[in-house]
Amino acid sequence: MASDENESGMGPEEVATFLATDTVAIDDETNELVIIDQTRLPNDLVIERLRTREEAWRAIKRLEVRGAPAIGVSAAIAFYLDARAALAGEATGEKGLPLAATTSWDALSRRMDETHAYLDSSRPTAVNLSWALRRMHDLALSRHEAGDDPAAVVEALREEAHAIRDEDVRTCRAIGENGLELVHDGDGLITHCNAGRLATVRYGTATAPMYVGQERGYTFHVTCDETRPLLQGARLTAFELMASDIDAQVECDGMSSSLMRTGAVQAAFVGCDRVAANGDVANKIGTSMLALACARHHVPLYVCAPTSTIDMSCPTGADIPIEQRAAEEVTQMWYTKRMAPAGVGVYNPAFDVTDADLVTAIVTERGVARPPYGDSLARIMAERG
Amino acid sequence: MASDENESGMGPEEVATFLATDTVAIDDETNELVIIDQTRLPNDLVIERLRTREEAWRAIKRLEVRGAPAIGVSAAIAFYLDARAALAGEATGEKGLPLAATTSWDALSRRMDETHAYLDSSRPTAVNLSWALRRMHDLALSRHEAGDDPAAVVEALREEAHAIRDEDVRTCRAIGENGLELVHDGDGLITHCNAGRLATVRYGTATAPMYVGQERGYTFHVTCDETRPLLQGARLTAFELMASDIDAQVECDGMSSSLMRTGAVQAAFVGCDRVAANGDVANKIGTSMLALACARHHVPLYVCAPTSTIDMSCPTGADIPIEQRAAEEVTQMWYTKRMAPAGVGVYNPAFDVTDADLVTAIVTERGVARPPYGDSLARIMAERG
Repeated sequence: MASDENESGMGPEEVATFLATDTVAIDDETNELVIIDQTRLPNDLVIERLRTREEAWRAIKRLEVRGAPAIGVSAAIAFYLDARAALAGEATGEKGLPLAATTSWDALSRRMDETHAYLDSSRPTAVNLSWALRRMHDLALSRHEAGDDPAAVVEALREEAHAIRDEDVRTCRAIGENGLELVHDGDGLITHCNAGRLATVRYGTATAPMYVGQERGYTFHVTCDETRPLLQGARLTAFELMASDIDAQVECDGMSSSLMRTGAVQAAFVGCDRVAANGDVANKIGTSMLALACARHHVPLYVCAPTSTIDMSCPTGADIPIEQRAAEEVTQMWYTKRMAPAGVGVYNPAFDVTDADLVTAIVTERGVARPPYGDSLARIMAERG
Repeated sequence: MASDENESGMGPEEVATFLATDTVAIDDETNELVIIDQTRLPNDLVIERLRTREEAWRAIKRLEVRGAPAIGVSAAIAFYLDARAALAGEATGEKGLPLAATTSWDALSRRMDETHAYLDSSRPTAVNLSWALRRMHDLALSRHEAGDDPAAVVEALREEAHAIRDEDVRTCRAIGENGLELVHDGDGLITHCNAGRLATVRYGTATAPMYVGQERGYTFHVTCDETRPLLQGARLTAFELMASDIDAQVECDGMSSSLMRTGAVQAAFVGCDRVAANGDVANKIGTSMLALACARHHVPLYVCAPTSTIDMSCPTGADIPIEQRAAEEVTQMWYTKRMAPAGVGVYNPAFDVTDADLVTAIVTERGVARPPYGDSLARIMAERG
């Protein structure tokens, strides 16, 4: 293992600020969605304050906030903030023109329909986005039916956004506890992309066993796939683990089979954007290759999935829509220097599907599902949430 | 498939010059080794003229010339040029000081011992480098024993360097003919790294069936793994195929399993740096992951190997030394922008080993070897070269 020592990274003060900052938060004083801009890591810690649905949509689309759980929480908060702004006469319409206050239920309801569809269009693969928006919207409808006036509905939305955020923290913590049962002190672990604290409010999903383990005195040696094209593993996962003093190294995605051959990896933990009812898993592109390396080298592959990412209405991985992204992400590193000939075609899906037979277990906040997943996932999802 | 249209690449004149230029050549007028600097592609066509063994060593080490066959040819030429310069009193020693002309056999022989060991130290994994240097050195020794004086030995070395270069062209052409038998017009092909014309004198190994096929009117659709960390697939293979009007697209290494699931790939062709006697194959890091994806999706994996890369003295892949390279190749894209936290550990092997059971066939200039490779490779190597 080589070491990369030259050039200084973030200073200790910035690292301390990072550790004290949740990835996604609501500021109830200023009515803002507060996120860490992940496109600027690991070089700079930039905290963004977003007021409008358009700002939230762009932040999700551009991956300033990313990771299925963090997107869900952000969308829930943005949905509430937009309803609040509409009610207060602070919302804007097309071309940024101010709108009249939507004090009637009909006007608020139309605004929510619009905002729901709009925010839902920012990323297609992760189910948490739809799940969180559906949950917020359903709550508003049921509170209206129960007789609440628009102001009371908006207050209920505020409480629900907080609840979704708080649940995310508890869910990740529980995934950490459940995942920790599957590994041992001293293990070498591998992960792909960032299913870390930066992908959730706190703890992460794939990283939750690492953070919970650290609290209990476990030492892990974690390898982070750099995760092309956007390098979330190198930029984000390695950064957040090092910030927390967990031993981390980076490798290119094509190196995992070679690394596993050396015996350095005892388990793989990955997150997911959607789990189908049969246990097929959509996650960041490259996950299915890591899964093949795991199977070849008898390394267990654990998929960490909040139950909000399990989509029982989706029979198999073939039914999960896969987002295709811009060619420039692959051919021009950060849009500065050309890495491939001009005009070349590019295959650039954001996600892939890992077949259920390659998944050793699915770790949820309600327990660990084992194959056959048709049964085990149905059992977990039937429990009270 | 997205397309990447913005920003102009190399102009048509430069492309024409590229197509008319061999990757490695000897200039007998100026006594120079002439190479295309591959670190500057696809943005600029820079032709380098190298005079000393030190310049050749650096060009190999820095991957200005790369690819097992091209390295072998370059080392053979550099070995000859150094002997010539020594004889002519044009060689330099440590600190660049001029040396007296080595007109005696003893002095020339000492110089060759030194130059052999020195050039051999530039890259450890590819066997062609050692093979070419051994062949040149052995020739010199046998010509001396046969009574040649130093001047005649050096002239014999010049002819042998030309012969090795010419053989490389014929070998690649034959690999192309043999590989073409394995595919069909219209096939989707995939390749990893650059085992193209830029890795040889002309034609390439993995690309030889594509170029020979094109001459016969075949149309192929080729996907190039970008091949992290140094992006030889995106920068070199996509470039040289497009320059020759062969349909090419780029993908990140972790995307091949996802791509194969779409049915777009009928066969994979890769090069190799060394083949062990049992058929295990050392090639650019990531090849073993591509091999796993091929096996999963029933896509045949063909390894294109000049017999000079088959090392019958090496029992298995475990006996092949694997070069470890600098961390910065992974963490800092082209040494400009940091892509991972400062101080992070990095796993950065240059090559990996693909187990023989994942290799469908090994395509050599003398025919196609099929499993069990212990027998088929021994049979091919026993034929007269």
